[in-house]
Amino acid sequence: MSCFTLEATDGAARAGCIRTAHGEIRTPAFMPVGTKATVKSLLPAEVRALGADVILGNTYHLHLRPGEDVIEELGGLHVFSGWDGPILTDSGGFQVFSLRDTLLEVDDEGATFRSVYDGHPERLTPEGVAEIQRRLGGDIAMCLDICPPADASRADHEEAVRRTQLWAERQVDLPRAPGQLRFGIAQGGTDRELRQRSLEGLVALPFDGFALGGLAVGESREEMLDTVAWGTPSLPADRPRYFMGLGDAEGILEVIARGIDMFDCVLPTRTARTGSALTARGRLNLRNARFTRDPRPLEDGCGCPACAEGFSRAFVRHLVTQRELLGLRLLSLHNLWFTLRLIAGAREAITRGTFDAYRAGVLATLAAGPEEETWQR
Amino acid sequence: MSCFTLEATDGAARAGCIRTAHGEIRTPAFMPVGTKATVKSLLPAEVRALGADVILGNTYHLHLRPGEDVIEELGGLHVFSGWDGPILTDSGGFQVFSLRDTLLEVDDEGATFRSVYDGHPERLTPEGVAEIQRRLGGDIAMCLDICPPADASRADHEEAVRRTQLWAERQVDLPRAPGQLRFGIAQGGTDRELRQRSLEGLVALPFDGFALGGLAVGESREEMLDTVAWGTPSLPADRPRYFMGLGDAEGILEVIARGIDMFDCVLPTRTARTGSALTARGRLNLRNARFTRDPRPLEDGCGCPACAEGFSRAFVRHLVTQRELLGLRLLSLHNLWFTLRLIAGAREAITRGTFDAYRAGVLATLAAGPEEETWQR
Repeated sequence: MSCFTLEATDGAARAGCIRTAHGEIRTPAFMPVGTKATVKSLLPAEVRALGADVILGNTYHLHLRPGEDVIEELGGLHVFSGWDGPILTDSGGFQVFSLRDTLLEVDDEGATFRSVYDGHPERLTPEGVAEIQRRLGGDIAMCLDICPPADASRADHEEAVRRTQLWAERQVDLPRAPGQLRFGIAQGGTDRELRQRSLEGLVALPFDGFALGGLAVGESREEMLDTVAWGTPSLPADRPRYFMGLGDAEGILEVIARGIDMFDCVLPTRTARTGSALTARGRLNLRNARFTRDPRPLEDGCGCPACAEGFSRAFVRHLVTQRELLGLRLLSLHNLWFTLRLIAGAREAITRGTFDAYRAGVLATLAAGPEEETWQR
Repeated sequence: MSCFTLEATDGAARAGCIRTAHGEIRTPAFMPVGTKATVKSLLPAEVRALGADVILGNTYHLHLRPGEDVIEELGGLHVFSGWDGPILTDSGGFQVFSLRDTLLEVDDEGATFRSVYDGHPERLTPEGVAEIQRRLGGDIAMCLDICPPADASRADHEEAVRRTQLWAERQVDLPRAPGQLRFGIAQGGTDRELRQRSLEGLVALPFDGFALGGLAVGESREEMLDTVAWGTPSLPADRPRYFMGLGDAEGILEVIARGIDMFDCVLPTRTARTGSALTARGRLNLRNARFTRDPRPLEDGCGCPACAEGFSRAFVRHLVTQRELLGLRLLSLHNLWFTLRLIAGAREAITRGTFDAYRAGVLATLAAGPEEETWQR
């Protein structure tokens, strides 16, 4: 039985629900990134209160620090981290292949790389990754795949598709944690023939869901969206579809419009660490001196814990310029709230059959750009 | 009318209440330090939930960044920071005289120093500090004083006493924010004659409360406690007594036993930033490898938000070693809770007339040292 219930469609956009061993994920779903078993600076209860159904943990980092043996001994990733809702663990493949200075060797058996923590050689294989994920105990385990950069040669993309398929076939039936779902990942870059080959090979396997990998890695946005548009029809309607690594408002709405159900991105929390707030009219860089005496909240009418509590732009700017951790926290809360509300709005619009108008409205406001720079006291 | 109600005494130890424009402070009181208008990493609501009645803000830092003009324009320190309870602002004197590399000149009019932020020369005078504090709008404003190190010559201590008294006389009647209280500060190091001279001069002035300054700056603990023991009887019983800068469990209990009502210290939050937890049996350095697989909370039976939520030592150690901000938050919450509970316990014991037994019990547990290093799963 599929873990996914499709509740509504509006054009190619979908609203649904994924059932996991630790609760339901309403889709479209944004997954805050908890790289090292923590969404940076936030308590699990805060992330839940923001409206997140699911978070992502990084197999690469958790394998190296503190190690799946420690996490398993402490009761698994849920008990260890204090997040009792659904968790998706990636495969580590993205880190292995994107930290290219540390990659030593790839063959059909797996990949060898130097740990970013201490330089020690480490090896990830499809079987090894599945075992790490079993011990971590996440609710959704992603297959180990090979993710080339956008500018890789066609031969490299073709080899990535071949090896990713080979590994998918070896992983699909490996032992899992109780109730754990496993998703396959398609590669192929923006080459239509290769992407199609990858998708066709993958959907022949009994995965619980499917991901489009190897996108948002350097190709143009148009190429990316085209690939999603002709890729998703190849995927079964009764399984969730995950676009790996996308967090900006426009990108999210455009891939939802092309049939994607799940996303993850460090953008909301990384933007917070650089001192910027996401708003409906674009980013505010709180380091800008014009905010020094600005009494307004980060965004008028925002219901996030930072804005609802009345913290001013002036105070957040003070905290950010003074490197006070509370500034980073307030911006993380705000930016995740913004992103999660955007997607909750998309879900509601799909259910009502008004997604096109919703998307057009959000994009028009964004295009209008920053608000006026003055205010009345 | 005095702002202070003495509710109970037990030997020299006192329990009472200070009424301020933003609420009551139950004494003995520990004041978490919010140097730059934020108790590092924590929301005001979290600090309140830990049981803090009052926080401290640093006039030196707030004057330089963002400036009292900004804070006043934003509605004062309470509105700016989001902390709506009592706030005490120090005078900046401690920073001016402890950052000795930056001190340029001191005369009877004031002190000139280089800003730690940008090296610009800045000047603080008694009148200037009082005006900064009026504009910041804290509930208790400390006088500008001169705080020599413990090893200063007797002549330097004598000069500090003279100038501190001169400045106190000039500050006591200066304009204040509505309802703002003003406390005088006694100097004199551990020299009994000088300390007595400072206290006598000070108590002749109509201050709302009195502080012992220039202690815990390098003298022995015995000298420090002796100075408190023979100093406090010179202070009027109907005014609060503040020991500036003390945060360890033993020190706090010993000065409470000698008649002190208020303390502040960065120790709980600074200890958190170094990765250590305060417990009844001493400090735990969570960086220690023996905590890697330790499933217990930071302290058994602790009701702090970190322990009550079930976060393990293993998880906190992981966060600390990975420099994840949540680790610092969890330790800050725990360490402030520990310190605030210690003092709440002292207050209750004073009210019951059992303070000596309470103090002896706490100190015996502390002296027993760390718990056994093993545990049963």
